[in-house]
Amino acid sequence: MIGGVVDEDTARALARMFKALADPARVRLLSLIASAEGGEACICDLTAPVGLSQPTVSHHMRLLVEAGLATREQRGRMAFYRVVPDALAALAGALAPAVPHAEG
Amino acid sequence: MIGGVVDEDTARALARMFKALADPARVRLLSLIASAEGGEACICDLTAPVGLSQPTVSHHMRLLVEAGLATREQRGRMAFYRVVPDALAALAGALAPAVPHAEG
Repeated sequence: MIGGVVDEDTARALARMFKALADPARVRLLSLIASAEGGEACICDLTAPVGLSQPTVSHHMRLLVEAGLATREQRGRMAFYRVVPDALAALAGALAPAVPHAEG
Repeated sequence: MIGGVVDEDTARALARMFKALADPARVRLLSLIASAEGGEACICDLTAPVGLSQPTVSHHMRLLVEAGLATREQRGRMAFYRVVPDALAALAGALAPAVPHAEG
């Protein structure tokens, strides 16, 4: 957000992604997937660590996928998820801490 | 979120800050403040760029302050705001894009 004022369209897009992260379970799910072997996690591997049912995890993952922060691939009966590094990088870039202007 | 699985307390803290950013007006306000001369903006300078009334801007700013993303200083009749670079850096660090594990 820094290094220039964010225009309305960009602000809307960023806010949409931040909204998807405005839930502790989704933050943890994304971190689990990012840390998973091969950068990919089966939904079957996500339920136990977050202590939520598979339908609830599916719901959270759907929101992350819709926000463009994760991708989903169905293989047989199982869904596999990956994070979208470019989307996370865009968010991180928008938050890069302000370099305060010289003061005084 | 990357470079390790986020524990529950950290996830809750991150989600709280992300929630404060889950609104385009707040994303723009934070970017305006971060880009302001001296890293500080008077509320009187924020209303016009976002096209919102002063009470509405005050409300958004209160949420950003409560989330620890901005600070507020009252001087005379005016409120002045700054971003909290460490908080933004913590969020950005949590989002640092996954370095995918070697695949295949």
